[in-house]
Amino acid sequence: MALSSSPPSGFRDFLPSNIELRQKVSQTISRVYRSFGFEPIETSALENLEVLTGKGGGENEKLIFKVLKRGEKLTEALEKSEELADLGLRFDLTLPLARFYAAHQNDLPKPFKAFHIAPVWRAERAQRGRYREFTQCDLDIVGSESWMAEVEVISAILTVFEKLGLKDVSVHLNDRALVYEALNQAGIPPNQQVEVCITLDKLDKIGQEGVFAELHDKFSLDSAAVVNAAKLIMDNPTEISKFDSIAPAEARGIKNILEKLKGAAGNQGQNCFFNSSLMRGFDYYTGPVFEFRHPKLSGSLGGGGRYDRLLEKFGVPSIAACGGSIGFERLILLLEELGNSRETLGAKFFIAVFSEEMLAQTLELSSKLRNLGQSVDLYPGAAKLKNQFKYADQKKARYALILGPDEVKQNQIRIKDLKTGIESLADFESLPKLPD
Amino acid sequence: MALSSSPPSGFRDFLPSNIELRQKVSQTISRVYRSFGFEPIETSALENLEVLTGKGGGENEKLIFKVLKRGEKLTEALEKSEELADLGLRFDLTLPLARFYAAHQNDLPKPFKAFHIAPVWRAERAQRGRYREFTQCDLDIVGSESWMAEVEVISAILTVFEKLGLKDVSVHLNDRALVYEALNQAGIPPNQQVEVCITLDKLDKIGQEGVFAELHDKFSLDSAAVVNAAKLIMDNPTEISKFDSIAPAEARGIKNILEKLKGAAGNQGQNCFFNSSLMRGFDYYTGPVFEFRHPKLSGSLGGGGRYDRLLEKFGVPSIAACGGSIGFERLILLLEELGNSRETLGAKFFIAVFSEEMLAQTLELSSKLRNLGQSVDLYPGAAKLKNQFKYADQKKARYALILGPDEVKQNQIRIKDLKTGIESLADFESLPKLPD
Repeated sequence: MALSSSPPSGFRDFLPSNIELRQKVSQTISRVYRSFGFEPIETSALENLEVLTGKGGGENEKLIFKVLKRGEKLTEALEKSEELADLGLRFDLTLPLARFYAAHQNDLPKPFKAFHIAPVWRAERAQRGRYREFTQCDLDIVGSESWMAEVEVISAILTVFEKLGLKDVSVHLNDRALVYEALNQAGIPPNQQVEVCITLDKLDKIGQEGVFAELHDKFSLDSAAVVNAAKLIMDNPTEISKFDSIAPAEARGIKNILEKLKGAAGNQGQNCFFNSSLMRGFDYYTGPVFEFRHPKLSGSLGGGGRYDRLLEKFGVPSIAACGGSIGFERLILLLEELGNSRETLGAKFFIAVFSEEMLAQTLELSSKLRNLGQSVDLYPGAAKLKNQFKYADQKKARYALILGPDEVKQNQIRIKDLKTGIESLADFESLPKLPD
Repeated sequence: MALSSSPPSGFRDFLPSNIELRQKVSQTISRVYRSFGFEPIETSALENLEVLTGKGGGENEKLIFKVLKRGEKLTEALEKSEELADLGLRFDLTLPLARFYAAHQNDLPKPFKAFHIAPVWRAERAQRGRYREFTQCDLDIVGSESWMAEVEVISAILTVFEKLGLKDVSVHLNDRALVYEALNQAGIPPNQQVEVCITLDKLDKIGQEGVFAELHDKFSLDSAAVVNAAKLIMDNPTEISKFDSIAPAEARGIKNILEKLKGAAGNQGQNCFFNSSLMRGFDYYTGPVFEFRHPKLSGSLGGGGRYDRLLEKFGVPSIAACGGSIGFERLILLLEELGNSRETLGAKFFIAVFSEEMLAQTLELSSKLRNLGQSVDLYPGAAKLKNQFKYADQKKARYALILGPDEVKQNQIRIKDLKTGIESLADFESLPKLPD
């Protein structure tokens, strides 16, 4: 029986027409990140399983695609009922960056400004618009305690959106330290605070009443002090002054970042707001967190934050780090929705094969043009001219060239302008000069 | 205890300095393939396991990284001692292309000229120079029976080498059909012929005596007819006329390809030879096979061939297909050996932070330059100027800019040319005009 030709559930193939926009966007991101002094890195798609599990990944750990041990190690694991997998596919690019930095720190500039554009894999339940393989575009500054790191990361991401012609992006900014301090003062013990943040993060989905109910049910937190702290965090989210007395240094820091972003990315930095209800999912954030939003998109276009302790896992003593990420798949969706062209780039010349007898001369023509650096799509074989022109049309070539016995006799080439449909005769020498 | 920060055994990280050459080469390959009218495709890294196993992959099937089933399906598989994995990482790009074509054929031009540059994974025993994750660069023509497909594929690959400045590449060409016909006439049954080819392929490693011994031991093939056929294939490998009477049509086809390649890639096609001892490993080749070699490299720089039946697996009736691949990792090694530059591309401007007090004005300077489209690496934070200049040096910036209180008073900026070491003062307006 024939095998199914579909990719596995939740995975995708990309046709040439899909790839044009993806490559254009990915090249823009790479160019902008580079122009801000970030350097590209690459890490292995597979990581040792113990790197991916344990503190750091939060909910995403449950979604790891695990790779089966091989050979004797598998037999042994089955006999002893031990862990059957030894490797896993990365589910984000932050953990791999932390491992990378720990491994190569002596060869890297300090601070290290890095970017990483690569696929990640999560065993999510497959559903519309949610994929099990998707691209992330991370940039990070490792080794800077300064809030300038946040300004750099956010400015670079805003500049990407600017270069892609995306208007109306807003930045929401908060500081985990503000939230933790408010929870502290309400008497919530530090070991509960991350979990409480995850509940507060559900505000958009379940509303204030839902948040209060969950705080009560899940943590037995319902004292007046807790309710007040939660309200402080959720109510009037853009008003930063409410934290002035609670955490003055952090409040000043956030004001500073907002102020300094103003000149960034052709004034896109004007659209930066404080939002005390912004949490961001990951456990590992320790300071400022931020998120990019667009009115046409529910959910975010990307985000990031400061994660000063993630590298401890690899034996690197507490090092300041801050990073951000663009949600590539969402960005592509949004750009497509906004009508961004997905036109494929065809070769300038399509060369049709008039007949078997003309093959040698046709090949010679294509070699000559190619050796001059021209792009040439040669039809591979002699077929009905009608089919060859259908092919040229699908491939979006600019000009079709035909070399028949009559043309050869006259030492000329028949050209069809595929935009206008006009046919004419030309010398070989005039071909490279045709407008694109 | 801290986790190891090394990537898994056999896997690699790439530092910025490694990536420059890899990206340059990959972009050159992509540009050349496109200029020949090939279109990019992408497929999922994971495939359903049954796509990867079964006829086609040969030895590589044993090297599949298998992905563990998840949740209830895993529990069930363990209870019933069934297959524990349902997905696998692709080990080449040919099988995924075959699946891709079967899935999307109605949306694709006919014939379909495709290329695919992507990583593949093989659970090889880790050893020096052999990696478990490596990049392949495939190009294929699906739906052309003409030998012009071979000419296109080989020409495109030769043009890549040409554009990379790689001289002395030779092409070795054979036709599986010639070999099979010789084996036929020696009375070797068709179902043994692929295995016999694998033995013949060991000629370089074990010599003629070794090949004869293996034919005897493994297949009990040692009649005079078999020995003669094997000798015909192995002796005088460049002499195509020895097949003129055995398989006249195929011999003519090969002569044709060699003849037509002559004008390709600025006459690199002159270095194409017939080699009757060339086999290429994969089972699925049915016609011409070819390989690219370089005198500085043992083994090949790439290769390919015709595989007219691979798509049957996916229910597509026999369709003509021909493809080739560049061994990306070997190509990079060779280029590095030949002294190709690996210099990182730094930002044009490095901006140092003179002091905390100068931060606002320094940020303003960087925003202004960036908004003009200049590349600017800003040091994220105030640090000792000595450390900042060490950083600028590592990052290979072109100019360092410093804004101290004196410069601000004079409405000027201090520039250090990092190539010459010369310092000077300049107005903001003259900065964008500095030579690269």
